[in-house]
Amino acid sequence: MSEFTHFDEQGRARMVDITDKKATSRVAVARSSVIVSENIYKNIVEQKNKKGDVLGVAEIAGIMGTKQTSTLIPMCHPIPISGVSIQFEWNTINTGEYELIIQAEVKTVGSTGVEMEALTAVTTAALTVYDMCKAIDKGIIIGETYLLEKSGGKSGDYKRI
Amino acid sequence: MSEFTHFDEQGRARMVDITDKKATSRVAVARSSVIVSENIYKNIVEQKNKKGDVLGVAEIAGIMGTKQTSTLIPMCHPIPISGVSIQFEWNTINTGEYELIIQAEVKTVGSTGVEMEALTAVTTAALTVYDMCKAIDKGIIIGETYLLEKSGGKSGDYKRI
Amino acid sequence: MSEFTHFDEQGRARMVDITDKKATSRVAVARSSVIVSENIYKNIVEQKNKKGDVLGVAEIAGIMGTKQTSTLIPMCHPIPISGVSIQFEWNTINTGEYELIIQAEVKTVGSTGVEMEALTAVTTAALTVYDMCKAIDKGIIIGETYLLEKSGGKSGDYKRI
Amino acid sequence: MSEFTHFDEQGRARMVDITDKKATSRVAVARSSVIVSENIYKNIVEQKNKKGDVLGVAEIAGIMGTKQTSTLIPMCHPIPISGVSIQFEWNTINTGEYELIIQAEVKTVGSTGVEMEALTAVTTAALTVYDMCKAIDKGIIIGETYLLEKSGGKSGDYKRI
Amino acid sequence: MSEFTHFDEQGRARMVDITDKKATSRVAVARSSVIVSENIYKNIVEQKNKKGDVLGVAEIAGIMGTKQTSTLIPMCHPIPISGVSIQFEWNTINTGEYELIIQAEVKTVGSTGVEMEALTAVTTAALTVYDMCKAIDKGIIIGETYLLEKSGGKSGDYKRI
Amino acid sequence: MSEFTHFDEQGRARMVDITDKKATSRVAVARSSVIVSENIYKNIVEQKNKKGDVLGVAEIAGIMGTKQTSTLIPMCHPIPISGVSIQFEWNTINTGEYELIIQAEVKTVGSTGVEMEALTAVTTAALTVYDMCKAIDKGIIIGETYLLEKSGGKSGDYKRI
Repeated sequence: MSEFTHFDEQGRARMVDITDKKATSRVAVARSSVIVSENIYKNIVEQKNKKGDVLGVAEIAGIMGTKQTSTLIPMCHPIPISGVSIQFEWNTINTGEYELIIQAEVKTVGSTGVEMEALTAVTTAALTVYDMCKAIDKGIIIGETYLLEKSGGKSGDYKRI
Repeated sequence: MSEFTHFDEQGRARMVDITDKKATSRVAVARSSVIVSENIYKNIVEQKNKKGDVLGVAEIAGIMGTKQTSTLIPMCHPIPISGVSIQFEWNTINTGEYELIIQAEVKTVGSTGVEMEALTAVTTAALTVYDMCKAIDKGIIIGETYLLEKSGGKSGDYKRI
Repeated sequence: MSEFTHFDEQGRARMVDITDKKATSRVAVARSSVIVSENIYKNIVEQKNKKGDVLGVAEIAGIMGTKQTSTLIPMCHPIPISGVSIQFEWNTINTGEYELIIQAEVKTVGSTGVEMEALTAVTTAALTVYDMCKAIDKGIIIGETYLLEKSGGKSGDYKRI
Repeated sequence: MSEFTHFDEQGRARMVDITDKKATSRVAVARSSVIVSENIYKNIVEQKNKKGDVLGVAEIAGIMGTKQTSTLIPMCHPIPISGVSIQFEWNTINTGEYELIIQAEVKTVGSTGVEMEALTAVTTAALTVYDMCKAIDKGIIIGETYLLEKSGGKSGDYKRI
Repeated sequence: MSEFTHFDEQGRARMVDITDKKATSRVAVARSSVIVSENIYKNIVEQKNKKGDVLGVAEIAGIMGTKQTSTLIPMCHPIPISGVSIQFEWNTINTGEYELIIQAEVKTVGSTGVEMEALTAVTTAALTVYDMCKAIDKGIIIGETYLLEKSGGKSGDYKRI
Repeated sequence: MSEFTHFDEQGRARMVDITDKKATSRVAVARSSVIVSENIYKNIVEQKNKKGDVLGVAEIAGIMGTKQTSTLIPMCHPIPISGVSIQFEWNTINTGEYELIIQAEVKTVGSTGVEMEALTAVTTAALTVYDMCKAIDKGIIIGETYLLEKSGGKSGDYKRI
């Protein structure tokens, strides 16, 4: 039967003890998205060079946010992150809106996985896109956010189907 | 025609100048959610007292995350937050899964709004729920995240329909 | 009957809403101490100029720690600190040990008091003294820590008797 | 004769060079306490489920504070913390007051000990209890704070008698 | 005769008391530079669109660094920054090298000036340019860094001649 | 032909992947300076013991700043710093001014170098000297800042000539 590993036998929260876990190479990939109007889509894409680079700012925010994961998430272990990259891709959706897909890959050589780091990366990037476009439209939606895959570590590999 | 207020005329990003804006009372409410299996739902709800309080941890993470907003989002102004509260509510959804709705209200007396603070609050809380349940299921999805309403400030009130 | 102002009616923790409180001038003074052996006492006092300045490091740590209060204490409001000063004083105690008394005064013009800031200041300074002397003696005790006085704000003045 | 390892030969403070020390498994346990009135004691204990969980907030603050140790204490090395747990226990004391004992165990696989991390954990937890109860009584005292034991590392084990 | 306002009468460092100073509108402009080879100059300028935007990353680092000023500089007051903008300009110098001039303007409505914030902005931007180019040349020099002008506040305006 | 290792093939910034690099012992030494008037020079030197220790504060700021490097510089990896020391030296220059030379040595056992950490150390120390003396003279110049040497790592040793 499943257990919440973040609580001990008395029900007190704790940072799970990973002292005896081996430091191995681990990777996690997460995904979020931002759904924007055609107007904002055009602003982001066309203005890239003459008016500023929304995705450029979002990407740096995502990378820097990755490094804040253990400060933000109470039970997260501080981990020596060894690589972060963020990718953007545009989808048209049948509402006439545009979906900006944000994907982050985070790597470490450590004793625990980097799922939270990858999720924090895409989340921070998505929030930054919202922040930079909210003067045009406060109704922007940050889409579903989830883990795409992870590898390395005792719990084995995971791949979303 | 809309403008990205975060870029100046040369297309350089900047922190928008709010020096001449009045400090007024402002409120923002944002919403996110976490979709979990029945197993996790039961673990969270039933184990509240004997095994630990997932929502208790998530709520504190959300409140503390609010205070990190301007550290995470590059163009956000540091704002003297004057109040934060976070609410949780459970919905059943027709996939047989359970949706944990997370709502945060943030207040300030400041020269700019607290939309980003409210969005960061619900996002951090949602990520924390994921973190505390991922040992059971890595497939948990953080649902759509958006602004519900804001009031105060020159740009007027906003209420999501 | 007393109320925990940090919890709302559903028992959820929250950052208390101070939106409607006036920004006024406030001061708080807190006290802690570190009890050390004669050997450490002499090392700190005599080596001040030729071997380094333990109290100098502790004092800067205390001042910088003050600015981290709202990052450390979950329900604390971020406050525009307008002044910090830290004083040290030595007492001999009848065990033959020496007591280093640490006192911090913190000021703000804000909507809530700076009691937590003053307590964080003396605590961080005390921890720093411990850190810098622990190579000599790990048994050093950080003494009782408490608020000496506060003034300003609706709840009135407080002075420890 | 004892030496302050935090100062070099010219008396300048420095972060001690641990480049050549082996990364080994290390544990430290520290203790603090908070002395409260019967009124506050009852509020904390009885209201645990219906009005909020003071100790739950304090514990998370303690765990998150542990991760800020090297940011707070000037000469502390950043350390990959591999586990934190915090325990609470109530004592009655003959003044009619109640003593909340806070104990933290911190673990690492690193090149230096985690004494400061354990002390920061209990201190942050104690400050948080004060913060959440100060609306009822500003006279609350944070009791003596010290290291209970440590193991691992070249300087050998330590156990307070 | 000049006085170090950061020290009190006993020679202890302190955060200067600005409780009684009025919150007024203040601006500061600082300047730094980075001296690079022609090779790096071409890489930065020509690759702007196809290989990445060094100055775009540096600018965001500068803006985010501004918000960390009071965390980095011990005696700095936390200030509600109300605007930051960073400008870059290229100069050829007679050594055949290229000088990237970095200028930051920071604004606040506060009780003390933002000189340190402007200096931290240009410094962080310059360090980031170094970081992103050091794989090509570790000999890059960060040029002189100084205040260009400030206005607002009791100490009057300053303009570098 | 040189490559910006911080950008991937699509020109997106990224944190360079160092997952496969070995953790080895590395050292970097950087240098900055502060040019001050004779008046400030005398204030710093003569008042060291009776009015406070500007260099003492600057040194602690430098050491603490070192630990913030990966928070400040977007593409920097978080690194387990194993030692920091800062040295000061005075030079007279033929303008009648005095040059305070600041040198920092940073060490790690890690998968990437500590050049940025050493540069951040001297920069933060220099900014702190400026901050503490700016009440006397706002025209103080922070001199050229550069890497003096580094050793360890695949890219080989570097020594400035």
